[in-house]
Amino acid sequence: MKINLNGKTSDVKAVWYEEPVIKMIDQRILPETFKIVDIKNTAELYDAIKNMTVRGAPSIGAAAAYGVAQAKSLGIEVEEAGKVIKSSRPTANDLFFAVDFVLQHKEQAKRYAEMYVDSIVERSRLIGVNGNELIGNNKRILTHCNAGALASVDYGTALSPIRMAKESGKKPFVWVDETRPRLQGARLTAWELVQEGIEHKVIADNAAGFLMATEQVDLAIVGADRITKNGDFANKIGTYEKAVLAKENGINFYVAAPLSTFDFSMESGQGIPIEVRSEEEVKEVKGVPISPKESMAYNPAFDVTPNRYVTGYITEYGVFKSSQLPILKDKGKESIIEQIEQF
Amino acid sequence: MKINLNGKTSDVKAVWYEEPVIKMIDQRILPETFKIVDIKNTAELYDAIKNMTVRGAPSIGAAAAYGVAQAKSLGIEVEEAGKVIKSSRPTANDLFFAVDFVLQHKEQAKRYAEMYVDSIVERSRLIGVNGNELIGNNKRILTHCNAGALASVDYGTALSPIRMAKESGKKPFVWVDETRPRLQGARLTAWELVQEGIEHKVIADNAAGFLMATEQVDLAIVGADRITKNGDFANKIGTYEKAVLAKENGINFYVAAPLSTFDFSMESGQGIPIEVRSEEEVKEVKGVPISPKESMAYNPAFDVTPNRYVTGYITEYGVFKSSQLPILKDKGKESIIEQIEQF
Repeated sequence: MKINLNGKTSDVKAVWYEEPVIKMIDQRILPETFKIVDIKNTAELYDAIKNMTVRGAPSIGAAAAYGVAQAKSLGIEVEEAGKVIKSSRPTANDLFFAVDFVLQHKEQAKRYAEMYVDSIVERSRLIGVNGNELIGNNKRILTHCNAGALASVDYGTALSPIRMAKESGKKPFVWVDETRPRLQGARLTAWELVQEGIEHKVIADNAAGFLMATEQVDLAIVGADRITKNGDFANKIGTYEKAVLAKENGINFYVAAPLSTFDFSMESGQGIPIEVRSEEEVKEVKGVPISPKESMAYNPAFDVTPNRYVTGYITEYGVFKSSQLPILKDKGKESIIEQIEQF
Repeated sequence: MKINLNGKTSDVKAVWYEEPVIKMIDQRILPETFKIVDIKNTAELYDAIKNMTVRGAPSIGAAAAYGVAQAKSLGIEVEEAGKVIKSSRPTANDLFFAVDFVLQHKEQAKRYAEMYVDSIVERSRLIGVNGNELIGNNKRILTHCNAGALASVDYGTALSPIRMAKESGKKPFVWVDETRPRLQGARLTAWELVQEGIEHKVIADNAAGFLMATEQVDLAIVGADRITKNGDFANKIGTYEKAVLAKENGINFYVAAPLSTFDFSMESGQGIPIEVRSEEEVKEVKGVPISPKESMAYNPAFDVTPNRYVTGYITEYGVFKSSQLPILKDKGKESIIEQIEQF
């Protein structure tokens, strides 16, 4: 992704590998501070995923793939490292997908981790190419959370089509849900859009419905953490609300994700484990308390949106309706090498 | 309302009058700081309403009623003062209703202002009595923003039935939408519920849909800033989202408001002016920036919920469906004296 820092433009990925160190942008302290963190072992990686230094399903997958390569490089039992890495967060499919993929090729862990991450970048780019076809000129697009380059190593999932639309001169405008409690929209999506020069406005999550009802939203695109066989999907808390509101207002609602986010072993979204995070994420904003100390809070990090609210799934293989997902499932049966060769 | 401060319990109203000074709880700095502010003239009152020192449609109405009495007491032209007060915020009906009522009796402005505010308190209490009948034992109630004692001098509108349910031993539990951008839920509703010892948890606004879809919400009650003839209503931004989600999940959704919030001169919600507030309210939380300085924001303070999402209107005269609102309209034709005599 293009980053403008102190007047210099550079090209940086959300996560990369300089054996035996995993490098990642610290996504907790953006937009104020741009900092690269060194992850030197499995314990540090576990923490970095859990505390959301790295976040976004495909970026978590990339970090996890490198984690297996790093364990091998450090002479640690890779199966054991894989288990630890997988236990860092429960919802995103990419985490499990990536660890399993590299473990299947553990003799050449580094090579396959690099291949996996390169493939994520290429898949994200293709999501952009395919999704761009859904975006007309001067469209106003609502997005939730951050499904940008930060979330998928580069390009993004939901933001990739918007980048491509910008590059094709279509002048997209983005409504950025701030995405409480962790503010990934206000902090990260807004930051990426500033870097790319894409016009946008940040809104309270509460305002999305009003904008839809007053015909100020042309379409919505979000990312996903796990998509099940029937097309139900888990994504950042609040996604379900926006999907219901989009349907109620006749607005097309798209989910953008690579194959690694699909969990075809799970029949429906009812089976997806929903991570519950700390009360403090709700009771504080950037360390500043917002509610009485006596009050409790509840903080589910994801919700599940049933397939009936989804207009289409934007993937590296094209845009599918939920009824067409079996076609995508067949792609998943091909080896990643075969998959990559198709691109 | 009952307030516990430094181990002492006292009974305080959100706004009251000690001629010629209007006294009000500063609602901007709760829950950290409990402070009473003195409003000494019309200009100060205009600021206090605009900057939300006093907020909530019925409390704004009360402050405005006192404002006319204060102008008279200070020897200022009351019609002119009324115009200034009315121009402080555009959406809530109570503001206009209260000013007009006292102006109609300007020769005895203080007496009629006191009568108006006493009536608001009694109406709020009756909203509690009537709404309590809709609440069973151990019910989990979602509310948005603050429609408590702070918002309506005492008792509250949406919170009044919940207080009564607590007093009748029904053990209500409240899901408190934090209500970005101004956090009236996390700050004010949570604070009131702590004072009253009512069990509750604060949630990100994004989590309300998830809680409804996973059957953790039994009913929803919100307040209103203006309700039009057909039952459409304006309330804090995000109310429309929660109403749509409640209907989608088969959850009863009630609006609690006194007669002063109804604007029978307006046919439908399309005519209600929606206040747009500063970008900073979205871009900052308690003065701490959350998004890039280069990003813009959009901050509509209210939205309009069409009548089809409302199960019933909880008023001081009973609970009505939208089709029954003409009965309530007839009550509005009676003088406030006649109305008060009925209670």
